[in-house]
Amino acid sequence: MAIRPIIVIAGVGNGSGTGGATARVFSKAGYRVALIARGADKLKKTAEEINQAGGEAAAFPIESYSYKALRDVFGTIKAHKWSAGETPEIRAALWNTGAGVRKGFLDVTEEDLQVVLDANVNGAFAFAHEVIQAFKRNQIDDLGKRGTLIFTGATASLRGNVTTSAFAAGKFALRALSQSLNKEFGKENIHVAHAIIDGGILTDLSLSRRSDEEAAKAWKENADIRLDPESIAKSYLYLANQDRSAWTWELDLRPAHEKW
Amino acid sequence: MAIRPIIVIAGVGNGSGTGGATARVFSKAGYRVALIARGADKLKKTAEEINQAGGEAAAFPIESYSYKALRDVFGTIKAHKWSAGETPEIRAALWNTGAGVRKGFLDVTEEDLQVVLDANVNGAFAFAHEVIQAFKRNQIDDLGKRGTLIFTGATASLRGNVTTSAFAAGKFALRALSQSLNKEFGKENIHVAHAIIDGGILTDLSLSRRSDEEAAKAWKENADIRLDPESIAKSYLYLANQDRSAWTWELDLRPAHEKW
Amino acid sequence: MAIRPIIVIAGVGNGSGTGGATARVFSKAGYRVALIARGADKLKKTAEEINQAGGEAAAFPIESYSYKALRDVFGTIKAHKWSAGETPEIRAALWNTGAGVRKGFLDVTEEDLQVVLDANVNGAFAFAHEVIQAFKRNQIDDLGKRGTLIFTGATASLRGNVTTSAFAAGKFALRALSQSLNKEFGKENIHVAHAIIDGGILTDLSLSRRSDEEAAKAWKENADIRLDPESIAKSYLYLANQDRSAWTWELDLRPAHEKW
Amino acid sequence: MAIRPIIVIAGVGNGSGTGGATARVFSKAGYRVALIARGADKLKKTAEEINQAGGEAAAFPIESYSYKALRDVFGTIKAHKWSAGETPEIRAALWNTGAGVRKGFLDVTEEDLQVVLDANVNGAFAFAHEVIQAFKRNQIDDLGKRGTLIFTGATASLRGNVTTSAFAAGKFALRALSQSLNKEFGKENIHVAHAIIDGGILTDLSLSRRSDEEAAKAWKENADIRLDPESIAKSYLYLANQDRSAWTWELDLRPAHEKW
Repeated sequence: MAIRPIIVIAGVGNGSGTGGATARVFSKAGYRVALIARGADKLKKTAEEINQAGGEAAAFPIESYSYKALRDVFGTIKAHKWSAGETPEIRAALWNTGAGVRKGFLDVTEEDLQVVLDANVNGAFAFAHEVIQAFKRNQIDDLGKRGTLIFTGATASLRGNVTTSAFAAGKFALRALSQSLNKEFGKENIHVAHAIIDGGILTDLSLSRRSDEEAAKAWKENADIRLDPESIAKSYLYLANQDRSAWTWELDLRPAHEKW
Repeated sequence: MAIRPIIVIAGVGNGSGTGGATARVFSKAGYRVALIARGADKLKKTAEEINQAGGEAAAFPIESYSYKALRDVFGTIKAHKWSAGETPEIRAALWNTGAGVRKGFLDVTEEDLQVVLDANVNGAFAFAHEVIQAFKRNQIDDLGKRGTLIFTGATASLRGNVTTSAFAAGKFALRALSQSLNKEFGKENIHVAHAIIDGGILTDLSLSRRSDEEAAKAWKENADIRLDPESIAKSYLYLANQDRSAWTWELDLRPAHEKW
Repeated sequence: MAIRPIIVIAGVGNGSGTGGATARVFSKAGYRVALIARGADKLKKTAEEINQAGGEAAAFPIESYSYKALRDVFGTIKAHKWSAGETPEIRAALWNTGAGVRKGFLDVTEEDLQVVLDANVNGAFAFAHEVIQAFKRNQIDDLGKRGTLIFTGATASLRGNVTTSAFAAGKFALRALSQSLNKEFGKENIHVAHAIIDGGILTDLSLSRRSDEEAAKAWKENADIRLDPESIAKSYLYLANQDRSAWTWELDLRPAHEKW
Repeated sequence: MAIRPIIVIAGVGNGSGTGGATARVFSKAGYRVALIARGADKLKKTAEEINQAGGEAAAFPIESYSYKALRDVFGTIKAHKWSAGETPEIRAALWNTGAGVRKGFLDVTEEDLQVVLDANVNGAFAFAHEVIQAFKRNQIDDLGKRGTLIFTGATASLRGNVTTSAFAAGKFALRALSQSLNKEFGKENIHVAHAIIDGGILTDLSLSRRSDEEAAKAWKENADIRLDPESIAKSYLYLANQDRSAWTWELDLRPAHEKW
């Protein structure tokens, strides 16, 4: 049997959102999971849950999404001993950072901007560097691919707005990166994709922002008005499973009743 | 067991392209297939092949893609007797017409324009009218949907160019229709999607256009440079299977080595 | 002195909107004006006002914006005797039809669709055919141009929405036409441009739609919230005056306080 | 007579490109000019030329386009003594940096990325901060404006490509900033615009890149195939002169014969 490949996921939060769901969905689909995020404790917990469910996950905490931090963490990932003494290949990767600073332009500080740029540009460039180089070492698989690199975008990837000068700058830049990479590395059978998540995602954090418990419960239970992280993750798995003859750079995902 | 639903597909050609592949892929996934196209003989042949493969397909030939022709053909579809005396629901639909007039603007005739508008606007409006009305009568299913309506777009959906004044006009219009419908009927749990097919599709027709047999063979066998209709069809099935919490309006599909 | 050139303007209404303002602004800038619209009486009145102000305008009423109507009216325009026995050249043209059907998709009739397609596609193709052919006969002028053809777009040129399935289909198509023409005929020094008018325009018609006289007055007097037709016309003149080295295909125009 | 206002221009190079042409065009239109760029000597020379031509320009050299450098230079600009002891208002501003790193993604270094981000994001945010704050102190003028802030974009503002992963990331981000600012500050009568320059600009630098003198001469003399900086500058002046009722966020500028 083939050695199970690795998906590297950066941006996992407490595991209740898109990063965590992608880890679980890909784990069930036969991937090992390398998890990168800030917050070592939460990250380890997410990894442990996957391991307890029969998967194989490892946590690689970082201090920030700086260029250096992302470059360095891949050294640790490469040195990691996976089960059974195998050296599995990185065959999929997800860049899933949020950093959604939302404030009026005059309130955006130099520090805000740096956080957004790290999460969407600096860290993403370093991450993509490592991932693309890893993919280039892979053989082409049965789908005609060396690997799939997915970026999570947002409404702000397509539109700047009154409270998103910094956030949209970061998300536009990330989209440009993903498109450039798709064009540059498609001819090496490396698949780069970008997902526009247009709507609220059901996470512990977004639940906690509802006005009260009842509002949170109503929002959680109404699948027409918020995105389920698992549904997003299934789309990411679908992207990873697209073959060389017809693959997607960009798709949008939103709830059925979203006004857009 | 639930009654197998219908997918209605308009634009099937000789069955070797996207329409035919979608018919076969959805048939295997448990759909009945109503096929609409010009050219009754080829259409019946495609239907028969599906029936012989254990599916259930019926051919509904039309004379043109005019508004009237599309409206009228739904009368015939509704009156059709499917197997076992069942009255299945239309749960999916694909508008897949080509009509790719490519010529310099000054050579585009009034007739050329009418053909393009019928295939991309007039017929599409009538088709969508019938499909949306059928969907509205359906109950919401396990995925949270009343039905999925997919439109096939092209590179010309996003960019006009020197030989595509008419074709791009039609394809831009079709994209506008699909976006408007997605926004208007999403809140009724009707899923409308649009696929940008960016590259050459492997069909009998496109094969016949290669300079010689060797060129045709090389193109056919190189999955990196042309779209496989079956791969497109799988993406369409994926769209139909997306649940209410995270569905896609638009995705692009192109071969790995496509320059874009 | 050079013979004064002609601007042909299709879509003039009662002369209080963009078409009329463009006629007046170009007239003051030295153009003769050929006015095309439905409603012969209003059209003649607009022409007369320009003539009384010292310009030279002629009215060319049509019954509809069908392909045939637009093609035929150019026969009349070519046969028109301008002052002083001169045969001036068509050097500028504006396609400025509205036809903004706004209704839910299921209420859009075949007739609605035909009106929208005539105003945005069929008529526009015939108009552009005649204009481009006229431009091709011109010498390159001091700006490096044979002529400038401008299309008026709308918010619906970029986005379909819940009441604009037909309108957006027409406006998307018109935008595709304008882009295709820009690319095809730029190399012959013919300048084709497209303006996205994003907001309410101050016209007699839009004033009449305000809830009462006071609301109309407030809207009229607040230049921050509605477009002045003369300001649009000045942008059109600016486009016509751009030289060959740096000309614009598309710009957007909206009031300062427009939410977008 | 009113006190002549200031235009602040960042990104001037040796004065032969868009920044220098904008300085000269706005100077002739009655603006004082504050020039920001790296390379103090070249910058002073450009300022002197404007002064000798009867304008009033001052040079404000910086070491880099970092956030801090741009914030700090405004302190110097504010302290500058303009002629006749007047304290003129900043009424226009142009962010015109290039930083067009073009190389394969795997060759993009952390330093390359930082240069691009400074020139298109960090510096631009600091610049816009200072400019918007200055505009907010202005009264609304006869055009209905407190000021006009223009950003120079490029083809890479709309499309990533195989050698533009970094450059496009920067230019996408800058476009997002400009759109966000337009939406946020339009309601305060501050006009923010973005120009997509799609083609080669005639500058000393671009001339020097031609294969030989003859090729350079041919390119210089063929106004159909390259952008004249003065023509760009005239469009910028046009943007600054648009009134509140119909102003432009974005326009594209390209030579007549550009293939796009």
